[in-house]
Amino acid sequence: MTISSDHPARYPANGPAVVVDVDRLEHVLLGRFGAVRREARAFAADPRFARIEGLSMAEHRARVLTQVQTLAAEGDVLRAFPAEFGGADDHGGSIARFEELVVADPSLQIKAGVQWGLFASAILHLGTAGHHRKYLPGAMSVTVPGAFAMTETGHGSDVASISTTAHYDVATQEFVIHTPFRAAWKDYLGNAGLHGTASVLFAQLITGGVNHGVHAFYVPLRDPETMEFLPGIGGEDDGLKGGLNGIDNGRLHFDHVRVPRANLLNRYGDVAPDGTYSSPIASPGRRFFTMLGTLVQGRVSLDGAAVNTSKLALIIAITYGNERRQFSGGSDTEEVVLLDYAEHQRRLLPLLAETYAAHFAHDTLLDMFDAVFSGAADTDEDREDLETLAAALKPMSTWHALNTLQTAREACGGAGFLAENRLTSLRADLDVFVTFEGDNTVLLQLVAKRLLADYAREFKDVDAGGVARYVANRAADAALHRTPLLRAVQTLSDGGNVRRSAGQLRDADTQRELLTDRVETMVAEVANALRPATRSSREDAAALFNAHQHELIEAARAHAELVQWQAFTAALGRIEDPGTRQVLTWVRDLFGLSIIERNLAWYLINGRLSAGRARTVTSYIARLLTRLRPYAQDLVDAFGYGPEHVRASIASGVERERQDEARAYYRAERASGDAPVPEKSVARAKKSKAAVA
Amino acid sequence: MTISSDHPARYPANGPAVVVDVDRLEHVLLGRFGAVRREARAFAADPRFARIEGLSMAEHRARVLTQVQTLAAEGDVLRAFPAEFGGADDHGGSIARFEELVVADPSLQIKAGVQWGLFASAILHLGTAGHHRKYLPGAMSVTVPGAFAMTETGHGSDVASISTTAHYDVATQEFVIHTPFRAAWKDYLGNAGLHGTASVLFAQLITGGVNHGVHAFYVPLRDPETMEFLPGIGGEDDGLKGGLNGIDNGRLHFDHVRVPRANLLNRYGDVAPDGTYSSPIASPGRRFFTMLGTLVQGRVSLDGAAVNTSKLALIIAITYGNERRQFSGGSDTEEVVLLDYAEHQRRLLPLLAETYAAHFAHDTLLDMFDAVFSGAADTDEDREDLETLAAALKPMSTWHALNTLQTAREACGGAGFLAENRLTSLRADLDVFVTFEGDNTVLLQLVAKRLLADYAREFKDVDAGGVARYVANRAADAALHRTPLLRAVQTLSDGGNVRRSAGQLRDADTQRELLTDRVETMVAEVANALRPATRSSREDAAALFNAHQHELIEAARAHAELVQWQAFTAALGRIEDPGTRQVLTWVRDLFGLSIIERNLAWYLINGRLSAGRARTVTSYIARLLTRLRPYAQDLVDAFGYGPEHVRASIASGVERERQDEARAYYRAERASGDAPVPEKSVARAKKSKAAVA
Repeated sequence: MTISSDHPARYPANGPAVVVDVDRLEHVLLGRFGAVRREARAFAADPRFARIEGLSMAEHRARVLTQVQTLAAEGDVLRAFPAEFGGADDHGGSIARFEELVVADPSLQIKAGVQWGLFASAILHLGTAGHHRKYLPGAMSVTVPGAFAMTETGHGSDVASISTTAHYDVATQEFVIHTPFRAAWKDYLGNAGLHGTASVLFAQLITGGVNHGVHAFYVPLRDPETMEFLPGIGGEDDGLKGGLNGIDNGRLHFDHVRVPRANLLNRYGDVAPDGTYSSPIASPGRRFFTMLGTLVQGRVSLDGAAVNTSKLALIIAITYGNERRQFSGGSDTEEVVLLDYAEHQRRLLPLLAETYAAHFAHDTLLDMFDAVFSGAADTDEDREDLETLAAALKPMSTWHALNTLQTAREACGGAGFLAENRLTSLRADLDVFVTFEGDNTVLLQLVAKRLLADYAREFKDVDAGGVARYVANRAADAALHRTPLLRAVQTLSDGGNVRRSAGQLRDADTQRELLTDRVETMVAEVANALRPATRSSREDAAALFNAHQHELIEAARAHAELVQWQAFTAALGRIEDPGTRQVLTWVRDLFGLSIIERNLAWYLINGRLSAGRARTVTSYIARLLTRLRPYAQDLVDAFGYGPEHVRASIASGVERERQDEARAYYRAERASGDAPVPEKSVARAKKSKAAVA
Repeated sequence: MTISSDHPARYPANGPAVVVDVDRLEHVLLGRFGAVRREARAFAADPRFARIEGLSMAEHRARVLTQVQTLAAEGDVLRAFPAEFGGADDHGGSIARFEELVVADPSLQIKAGVQWGLFASAILHLGTAGHHRKYLPGAMSVTVPGAFAMTETGHGSDVASISTTAHYDVATQEFVIHTPFRAAWKDYLGNAGLHGTASVLFAQLITGGVNHGVHAFYVPLRDPETMEFLPGIGGEDDGLKGGLNGIDNGRLHFDHVRVPRANLLNRYGDVAPDGTYSSPIASPGRRFFTMLGTLVQGRVSLDGAAVNTSKLALIIAITYGNERRQFSGGSDTEEVVLLDYAEHQRRLLPLLAETYAAHFAHDTLLDMFDAVFSGAADTDEDREDLETLAAALKPMSTWHALNTLQTAREACGGAGFLAENRLTSLRADLDVFVTFEGDNTVLLQLVAKRLLADYAREFKDVDAGGVARYVANRAADAALHRTPLLRAVQTLSDGGNVRRSAGQLRDADTQRELLTDRVETMVAEVANALRPATRSSREDAAALFNAHQHELIEAARAHAELVQWQAFTAALGRIEDPGTRQVLTWVRDLFGLSIIERNLAWYLINGRLSAGRARTVTSYIARLLTRLRPYAQDLVDAFGYGPEHVRASIASGVERERQDEARAYYRAERASGDAPVPEKSVARAKKSKAAVA
């Protein structure tokens, strides 16, 4: 579906022979879960689900609750659940479906995520058959709106340290849920503010004087008739937020609230009537991460939703940039469309390239998610890979979405600031994506730790000297100003002209080598720097780790960018139409070269690129921008969102109508001979008359 | 005034001997207009002016109108106006006063800016004595809320191209104001949506068939009794925006609306009864820029307001970062405060350094503004310098404010997303600062053009060969991989160890040289690249200019950063207390080195820094962060805003209370011997028992 199929800038008169097959590209982008996505998009276009700007918080919350109930009834939103409960055991398709909801209203997507992705999903994955029979129907149908009571005021990303306790009382065979102090209040929980009648609550399970760590319990919250809190439970509303105000986030606290022993969701840990604890997973650490691992779908769907929102932002800004005229360039009578300005291209097109990269990377993530959750590939290692990939991609795509929404907003000027054009509202809603479901910085640190672990595993049979030699070979030695080995990159000789150098940078193997080399070298350098930690006190080790925290996070970021680049490159192989593949290859090059340009100093300092070649990176980017400019509209049209999804008046064609009307007015005025003469011309005419006289 | 005067992290047990005198630093920061600022802050702390989050647009608009009326009555807001109308002829003080209003509510600051800074100010600066007598009293007292009707839907930053016309009709001695087509509607005008009864309207003045360009007219809009539009005038509300919803932006259109000849604000251009046009400024171009130049105060006050908002954001994030604990580092029992994490420091402290730089740069701008508007230094060149400086600084400080607000929001995690903590709301309001009163990108381009003009002037007596030699000497020649001359920087020899290299980078002259060299070289390179434009067609020249637009903008940005660095460095000389000067010198170094780090690739490619020295930039920044960390609270306390201005619950000390309560609970539990034993310890104990057996 194209927004403006007849855009003149797409095929300029002297334009290139290369043509993008927009419909086929759209098909490629819809991908493996294309049918589900098309249905979800048709559904998301229903005006009943569209965000209405300017509602009060109360109105917005009420509307979103109704929407979620409508989804339950009509929306095929239960695909992830077992067939016996009316689901389809379709894990990847379910996520694909959910992440399309963001185009209707991010509040709807997140409220749905709270209900099915967190609350019902925790019952499914952490509970056992009895829980499924008893609780899933209400959770799935939203007759029981539920809170996912994990986060506490005092602990966000550090779930292991939550302070709510669940003491087992042998005498009554009950768990006693208790909040010991203010910081242990449950906080920021969707459905807790207003609508939730039950919760899956996380607390430290204590039995027989031993703390077995964080476990989940099914805990009723409110009387569904009166909506009053049950005895011992209290709470408050989180109130207005920077966005997502369709969700009733709130706080909860518990004063020795008793729930039956059976309310422990006991798939990974159980307590016998006599208080004996048992678990299929012996290690408390591994058990904790297994329980939390079932929640990875939140990160997966945020990744997809963030990519979809970036697409909306670019559809709006690029469509407007192709219609809006401002300032005349070389012409007396014609103003220039914004997207013909080099700086406008420089601001928007690399974001478009990154959106494509994030899209293809998300496809990879969704495949891996589906394989793990369907059981097709569900070893411990598979799960660990999935969690690492989600932890790597979610930070990239959510930060990218904020950056793209903001740049798009600025690129649309004052018009971008009007609520009717959606960019500010989407940005406000997406803001919290970068810190919830795992703070982005914390997630990147997890990725870095995994990279270090893999590195250590790779070298576990190599003696210390061997590691040191490896590191010395790969990483530049700052103290000695030694030139590092360049491996494959060294084959890029420095001779030749700029055009030939650019040709080499365009080569996929060169890009891959440069990106890979950087990740590997950074990991090796940090690993080397952290080596003393294994022989030092815990305090010193923590201090050493902290001293290298920034490099760790940068290494994780570099790894995530490499993953995106690889996913993009792999996707090029799936594109059959040669014109489309050519254009997308340029887009991939723009993505790869943009990463290299951002980190150009690293490549120079570490001897991976010479100064001369480094200079060609920027000039080649400039050439790519010029080359891609005519395809900008095609590339956003292929995202496949129609006006019913975009719903931004400046991207509706109205700007072109206004511009055309204005130009027609001036053309007619000039043709009539009645146009006022500019004072400048009069003065010039007088001067030449005087000169003649 | 300090928010938390007893913060333990400020003077750690093994802390440095260097101490910041917070009160004296606050005094320095209040600066030349300190008395006015203190009064304005006391006034802005009045709860009547505080932003209330969650008001509907209608309620917020009504509240802000009342606030503006209260300001007019009580707020000493007329300082900029002539004494004869009740003002104080105090231009700099007036701006200083206005830019403090942002801490109460940015909508209030901008609505006040529309009324006095734009509407009344245009009457003052573009009108003559008759207009002053007739219109200033109503404009100053807000009995006549006024719109500043310049921007049109079709033209934002390109004011010269607006399409509204004012035809002079000799027969009736009236101007006929007319909107020829939809794109020429006036748009985004504060006070136009609801409250405005009059406007200063900009239109193309046409008399005797000649268009004399953009002029300003006093045009009544609504009947003040009924608030109905006057005949021939129509309009609509711009509706909800991404922020600043206390302001009633709207659109206006005019259908042959007649105003008397005298309504032309005729200081810079007049029309005699017979239709003869006259102006004290012969050149239409210079006349246009002179008229627009009187509006520079909008940019000056946005610069100051943006800096003040960055201060608020950092007070909130740094205070919270000093109290909030998350994850335990090397300790079993103590969690680490956020600001002790290296990455947290890396995210916040360079923004703090940039805020100080932007603050001192703004002081310079305000001095120059006061000199020009008071007449103390008011040549054409002075005005041009002022406009260039405002055009350079406003983009830097407004983008910086958005970046700072967002990073502060993320640094506060989910708590930062709650409206009660203000960060999201301030960010939403400040968003449009980067595109209004001159789009930032457009402004930087203006700065670049000025830099090019200065460069051309410097070389006007040098022949082409001389310029080419100069350029060749300064700029690296990419094609030939020639090593450029290094001028003073070449004295930084590459020998020695990292510590000594860092010592050289700490040297103010080295920083100045590196920053200055970059600006000069970039300007010279672009000038050289644009040289063919002087001999080519207008179209080709425009294309060439466009091909270098990105470099132009980057050169302007580099210039603006240098200006900030210079202002900061000059300010260090005004700080008498040695401890304070030492700490602020580190802050200045952090600012300077951060700029150099961002552009490290440029310094490497152009041979200004060796790879070895480039590496020390980042390690020296890491050392500066560690060194500055204990002073972070002092440095934000010195901004001088109290809780009555900050009004964010997470920066109120409540977080510390919660953390202290939690730690006391666990301490007591451990002391009681009743603490549950972690499963891990039990397992370990069992294992060792088994080993013994």
